[in-house]
Amino acid sequence: MTSEAADPAAMLAVALAEARKGFAEGGVPVGAALFGPDGGLLGRGRNRRVQDGDPSLHAETAAFRAAGRRPGYRGTTMVTTLSPCWYCGGLIRQFGIPRVIVGESRTFTGCHAWLARHGVEVLVLDSAECADLMRAFVAARPDLWHEDIGQDA
Amino acid sequence: MTSEAADPAAMLAVALAEARKGFAEGGVPVGAALFGPDGGLLGRGRNRRVQDGDPSLHAETAAFRAAGRRPGYRGTTMVTTLSPCWYCGGLIRQFGIPRVIVGESRTFTGCHAWLARHGVEVLVLDSAECADLMRAFVAARPDLWHEDIGQDA
Repeated sequence: MTSEAADPAAMLAVALAEARKGFAEGGVPVGAALFGPDGGLLGRGRNRRVQDGDPSLHAETAAFRAAGRRPGYRGTTMVTTLSPCWYCGGLIRQFGIPRVIVGESRTFTGCHAWLARHGVEVLVLDSAECADLMRAFVAARPDLWHEDIGQDA
Repeated sequence: MTSEAADPAAMLAVALAEARKGFAEGGVPVGAALFGPDGGLLGRGRNRRVQDGDPSLHAETAAFRAAGRRPGYRGTTMVTTLSPCWYCGGLIRQFGIPRVIVGESRTFTGCHAWLARHGVEVLVLDSAECADLMRAFVAARPDLWHEDIGQDA
């Protein structure tokens, strides 16, 4: 990876590309990527509920999985197109991922503020591209969105 | 499933059998199972960090995954041999799993008290069998255990 990956907007672009792939596949369009201390990409992924029939793969967990086994997460950054839900926020806290870049938190406000209170460096970019993608998805498939975040209709 | 599955000890036995399988495989010996409102088994699983090289599969997430896509989790019970870490506790909170049965919280105290404060019914069975299994594992493989919960050596 080049050093431009250390730029928050460039890092978010990797996650957004994943989210767009997910949208094109008919899935939940949330993407994420985990970067190392040097800005190198460790893993990237997208929500795979529809694609794999797997409710355990949210975008952040997919990126974490793709990064494989690691002795620790010092200096890493998790980038996600959407404010992390409790499941993904719990992942970030448990594994000591010290920095999170959030594409947007307008369409869904997860626990990024809770993470910040517990010492995680959180940067919310308020990306219109991320929000537009989620708005289009939620309008088209509210049932799927509610399923993905455990909100019974 | 028979109605005996609604008995906490019988439910824990399912999770403990998974944990013992994990131990025999050289993995992290934590097991879990998700039961439906009628006491029927929805999914069971164990930590698969070693077996699949997958850090995203803790016992609870493995059981959740095995249960497949569901519209909601009303009336379900997650049974786990060990107090859930933030990652797995976040899963329980996000998806509104209303009840958690914990084998033991002596060898690792996760976030079960936090879950209880947020409305989850939590029952800690303080099982000597669960604790003995974890103690044997942590003594033999402290490196693997620290990796699994994100504690850098």
